[in-house]
Amino acid sequence: MTGTHTTLNELFEPVEDGLARMRAILREQLAESSPAVRDMTDHIARFRGKQLRAALVLLCGEASGNTTDEHAAVAAIVEMIHLATLVHDDILDGAAVRRRVACVNERWDNQVAVLLGDFLYARAFALSTTLSSRLCSRLLSETTRKLCVGEIEQSAQRFEFELSAERYEAIAGAKTASLYAAACELGARYPGGNEEPGAQMAALGWDLGLSFQIVDDILDLTGTTQELGKTAGTDVEDGKVTLPVLHVYALADEGTRARIRDVYTAPGIEDRAGLLRRTVDLAPGLAFAEARARHLLKECRRRILSLSPSPARASLEGVVEFIVERRL
Amino acid sequence: MTGTHTTLNELFEPVEDGLARMRAILREQLAESSPAVRDMTDHIARFRGKQLRAALVLLCGEASGNTTDEHAAVAAIVEMIHLATLVHDDILDGAAVRRRVACVNERWDNQVAVLLGDFLYARAFALSTTLSSRLCSRLLSETTRKLCVGEIEQSAQRFEFELSAERYEAIAGAKTASLYAAACELGARYPGGNEEPGAQMAALGWDLGLSFQIVDDILDLTGTTQELGKTAGTDVEDGKVTLPVLHVYALADEGTRARIRDVYTAPGIEDRAGLLRRTVDLAPGLAFAEARARHLLKECRRRILSLSPSPARASLEGVVEFIVERRL
Repeated sequence: MTGTHTTLNELFEPVEDGLARMRAILREQLAESSPAVRDMTDHIARFRGKQLRAALVLLCGEASGNTTDEHAAVAAIVEMIHLATLVHDDILDGAAVRRRVACVNERWDNQVAVLLGDFLYARAFALSTTLSSRLCSRLLSETTRKLCVGEIEQSAQRFEFELSAERYEAIAGAKTASLYAAACELGARYPGGNEEPGAQMAALGWDLGLSFQIVDDILDLTGTTQELGKTAGTDVEDGKVTLPVLHVYALADEGTRARIRDVYTAPGIEDRAGLLRRTVDLAPGLAFAEARARHLLKECRRRILSLSPSPARASLEGVVEFIVERRL
Repeated sequence: MTGTHTTLNELFEPVEDGLARMRAILREQLAESSPAVRDMTDHIARFRGKQLRAALVLLCGEASGNTTDEHAAVAAIVEMIHLATLVHDDILDGAAVRRRVACVNERWDNQVAVLLGDFLYARAFALSTTLSSRLCSRLLSETTRKLCVGEIEQSAQRFEFELSAERYEAIAGAKTASLYAAACELGARYPGGNEEPGAQMAALGWDLGLSFQIVDDILDLTGTTQELGKTAGTDVEDGKVTLPVLHVYALADEGTRARIRDVYTAPGIEDRAGLLRRTVDLAPGLAFAEARARHLLKECRRRILSLSPSPARASLEGVVEFIVERRL
């Protein structure tokens, strides 16, 4: 993992000044005079993650020749919204480890995780209202709504083994890809105008986010907790039927289908993902999901190559490779 | 309770057109094409409550001679933020009954309550970004941040028996009064300018909200679940040491203090609020809190009477009476 992290930092070089400003803004925003709040924000600062979404705002700006003084703030806002979804996701997923730092809802309780997420959303929106253009507030409040709808739909579709691939992608897209799309669109468009390049970059972000999510789904089935730096197998545990399993289920005979349903639902199973791997041949489903992710990433490359050559464009190509290298 | 409700509706008469438009906007905003989301928003529509905050936007607008076509939308946004806090509060409080309709987190689970609250916040901010002025987005995102900080502080101060009355009011104010203050300020100021009347109405809203909260704290100690239409005694259950108890504790001898701490913390107690009432003389604390609420409401009346006479001004006076009548 250290290897890929170094690579990402190298990819972020064309926007490293902007990212440094983004981090300063983030620090400033998370500093809150209330000691109880500071305790929590100090803690989440430690699992700051890849900051890929923030970097995409800046890279898409640079690659589209559309960088303003406010892009760093836009990137910080996108990152805060992402942090808020992570904090609330920990309540959702019951994930036990996130980036090897105990998650907020284990150190404190659910109540506090809800409030910290709300605080991060509020901070993000408050900062967006101080920018010269309203585009950021508009696009990101709409995106946050989509995100929530995607999460709610996903929750409603738990243990739903007959979901079509299209429906799966619509939900996973709303949940994950919509924030990538907004990040890329804001980079290319902020403070306004530039509809056409904005739409192109939004489509790039969507495909990037969706392929990222599909790779995540694959890794949750095939990876180990140690490799991932977060709990593996939580999708099966939580009743989330992801693309590889949906594909296997669709093609399976009734006996295999019953076995799959049992692994997800029968009480008292310790390691559901492990049992699923041992009792069902997931290979065709994993291959199908991988092919879909590769197709989306090819689309991403095509869109990136339509931009004029620049160091930022080369970095966007590198981001695509990074997603591939995670395991595809 | 029916009596006071009729009275409130009568008080809202000067702004009933605006309230009808506010409700139409709210319905439209909660309508979402996702069936899973609609299921939930249909449900919360049933516990719509008094809509007092929305009415305050409109009444303060009318009473200040500052009503615009957009005031109904501003009122709907305030109400959505209030709904979001209620939904997330149900996770916080473990309250079992809210307005005699099962709360969201009992019909669904915590996950979904978190997401529904997030959805309501996002909807509210998205709507605010469509208004002609940014004042509403700015004031309400700032207010939401304050709200969260207040809730986090309150959570951090559980079982804190030596909180000063000032500190208690600062936290209760941030948690509750800040949204009342924003509602009243927006009514008087939206779309902008009018700083002085805005500051006056913000102060009115703050005192109104704080006295409302103090009355709530009193009723949680003295009322029954049936009278309140929501679970009584949850403050003691949740370790929230409210103004009446803080006052009694501050004046008590060490034996009584130990008894109070025991009632809050000893394991296995069924009805902590009941036990507290039976074993500790709360009367001086209740009288102190009541006097404080009455003082705040007197300040409210003074501020209201500085406005020119109008039906809306008379209704604001009626709102003050409504808070008194709840039990003071």
